[in-house]
Amino acid sequence: MNSSWHETDLAIGAQIAAELFDVLAAKTTDPPGVTRKAYGNGERIAHELISGVAAKAGAKAEYDAAGNLFLVMPGEDRSREILVGSHVDTVPHGGNFDGAAGVIAGIAAQAVFHAADRRPPFDLTVVALRAEESCWFPYSYVGSKTALGILDPAVPDSVKRIDTGKTLAEHMREAGFDPDAVKGGAHRVNSKRTIAYIEPHIEQAPILVLDNLPVGVVTGIRGSFRYRQAKCIGAYAHSGAMPREYRKDAVMATSDLIQGMDRFWDGMEAKSADLTVTFGELGTNPEHHGFSKVPGETHICVDIRSQEQETLSIAETRLHELVADIEKKRGVRFELGERTGSKPALMSGHLQEMLHAAAKRIGIEARTMASGAGHDASVFSLHGVPSAMLFIRNTDGSHNPDEAMVLADFNAALAVLVEMLSQPASAWPSTT
Amino acid sequence: MNSSWHETDLAIGAQIAAELFDVLAAKTTDPPGVTRKAYGNGERIAHELISGVAAKAGAKAEYDAAGNLFLVMPGEDRSREILVGSHVDTVPHGGNFDGAAGVIAGIAAQAVFHAADRRPPFDLTVVALRAEESCWFPYSYVGSKTALGILDPAVPDSVKRIDTGKTLAEHMREAGFDPDAVKGGAHRVNSKRTIAYIEPHIEQAPILVLDNLPVGVVTGIRGSFRYRQAKCIGAYAHSGAMPREYRKDAVMATSDLIQGMDRFWDGMEAKSADLTVTFGELGTNPEHHGFSKVPGETHICVDIRSQEQETLSIAETRLHELVADIEKKRGVRFELGERTGSKPALMSGHLQEMLHAAAKRIGIEARTMASGAGHDASVFSLHGVPSAMLFIRNTDGSHNPDEAMVLADFNAALAVLVEMLSQPASAWPSTT
Repeated sequence: MNSSWHETDLAIGAQIAAELFDVLAAKTTDPPGVTRKAYGNGERIAHELISGVAAKAGAKAEYDAAGNLFLVMPGEDRSREILVGSHVDTVPHGGNFDGAAGVIAGIAAQAVFHAADRRPPFDLTVVALRAEESCWFPYSYVGSKTALGILDPAVPDSVKRIDTGKTLAEHMREAGFDPDAVKGGAHRVNSKRTIAYIEPHIEQAPILVLDNLPVGVVTGIRGSFRYRQAKCIGAYAHSGAMPREYRKDAVMATSDLIQGMDRFWDGMEAKSADLTVTFGELGTNPEHHGFSKVPGETHICVDIRSQEQETLSIAETRLHELVADIEKKRGVRFELGERTGSKPALMSGHLQEMLHAAAKRIGIEARTMASGAGHDASVFSLHGVPSAMLFIRNTDGSHNPDEAMVLADFNAALAVLVEMLSQPASAWPSTT
Repeated sequence: MNSSWHETDLAIGAQIAAELFDVLAAKTTDPPGVTRKAYGNGERIAHELISGVAAKAGAKAEYDAAGNLFLVMPGEDRSREILVGSHVDTVPHGGNFDGAAGVIAGIAAQAVFHAADRRPPFDLTVVALRAEESCWFPYSYVGSKTALGILDPAVPDSVKRIDTGKTLAEHMREAGFDPDAVKGGAHRVNSKRTIAYIEPHIEQAPILVLDNLPVGVVTGIRGSFRYRQAKCIGAYAHSGAMPREYRKDAVMATSDLIQGMDRFWDGMEAKSADLTVTFGELGTNPEHHGFSKVPGETHICVDIRSQEQETLSIAETRLHELVADIEKKRGVRFELGERTGSKPALMSGHLQEMLHAAAKRIGIEARTMASGAGHDASVFSLHGVPSAMLFIRNTDGSHNPDEAMVLADFNAALAVLVEMLSQPASAWPSTT
């Protein structure tokens, strides 16, 4: 491989990462798996561990008003910085890698620079963002939003931690931070000074496993629209007796909708649009259905995702067209119910190219892939900070004790990351 | 109208029927609705009531070994007989008309002949068959099978009434009948002596209601095949992350099957084949499903009916072809589970023509329709007795307290029936 790095320096980073994973798992164990509550003891333990290791590489710890941790390794140009990181909180009884792998990749990269006695082109700042797992505070992306000063000021006093019942502001204050400054819009990160936000993360569906590749470069984070409580109302009737022309069969109508959206997916796939179409929950009504009845009601969950806002819009238009057509054809009525959704965020094309180029130079094959789940990178990207995600092969998904990232794959991601970070200032996106 | 009957004679039959319905409902009331258990008190009360009325018309009561009641009005030719009837048992808290309407139509027809001082061409025998509702003894068509001497001899000692736990044989014996003779194949009815079995019955889906017609002539009783516990097994995955090519989506696969059978129905309908296709119960697995998961499992009930055995066979072949195709296309596996089914039975074309001709002569418009539910007429038909059913308009289905047949429609059916029964011997099917 044509890496600009000595194997021995990379090995030092890999060794430090391996030890961090082990100690972190041991100190936050909560069988099965680990638990690191947002603004809780587990998150604090993680901060102490990584701060200690980063200090040895010459990185200085800073907290912002919300308690996001920044570990700053000085670069050749100190006027700007590259952020590498993720979060260190987990779901209850989660796995050790979701979140932590991204932060530890940053720490290990600093260790590699330190071992090689080299400086990154800009400050290389590892960031551990707070409260990414919305199971603790039922609100999305507290860490990246506070880092950017864009958290809704009403949130700190209204959103409560699910187990303690205390507000986010109370938890911030107890941990020694400044919720009033947060509400005032204090921010450690801005798009003028930040060259890039780079978030390594384990994959959450076994795509790299199925493709037998160690890493993937993420093209975008899919947004979505959802109807979680949709219903189709027809009319119950005798299954053997009711003639077809008088039926209002909710199951037939619902399968029309499913198939219609699947055909739509065919068409969008042919145009290379990014899309997923899922009906994860479906059922007739057990209180009224029967094997010898024409079904008079179904419920169904609609979950449509894309990294492209336009694709989501077209999909939603198509869904409503289908609903109207099927209502007419089948004599049924759909009640789609509450709509929820999230915005898609494209990753920086420039940074994607840098990651692909870095991987290619060191002989590592990387897949191009979308992220189906949400990440802090979407907040940075939508706020104008060029963002990138590097996915690491992982079996058994995330948010469970069975997450299984092997260190060889983590080390491949680390090698790609440090290769990218060693590029000169001129190779990076310019700030605005 | 060109009826051969005087209005006054028909009115006497209608009056007798109206009184029988009222008294029967009052004596077997069990709010909501009525309950007449097979081989129970309600069935006995019904027998007493109709025997009393039939006696006044000169009909003689006879019981067979199983306790089926025959009320014989002598005809011009006493060597053969026409059976008119149905059953008088009901489901628990059922309606007053399912079953009883057919028996009472026969009683009323006898009263019309008696009032007009006319004799039917052959003996006109009203039959009240036992235990048609399989909710009491979980076995189909005890009454018609014992009348024909074709009940499986193991049944009387093995099938138990659901509420008492006593066997059918014990109930027969307690009611004064002879289960040993039943097991030996004793039979009151045979196809040499029986010209026809005619069963008037309320419709069980509101087809005549929707068509605004009082009566319908039944073409056949649909048979069926069913898979009540079918499953589709795919694989759960992240709905946003799992690429389409790796999905094993059980909901998509199940909707392929539903739509495939619906397209098949289109094709069979174009060929005028008789068919119903119903998936009355459908669901993902609440223990494992989630709105953000590709669904890994569904259960589904398959209920396919036709009055034509060949159509059922073609449908079953198509179902299995679809299953195989979808398994290949979607990477899923279907487990169809236990198959149950029943044989279809065509009604006599000769008797259908007689019913249509009778209705036409008296100016009543009758629809042609299949019966989706099973009836004793199927047993007679499959055993070689020319059989017919005359459906009477009814809202709200059957097997519930809301059955609603209006007397005007019953009287229309009665008029069609007596018009048919007044045809000379030469108009009837010849016995074999």
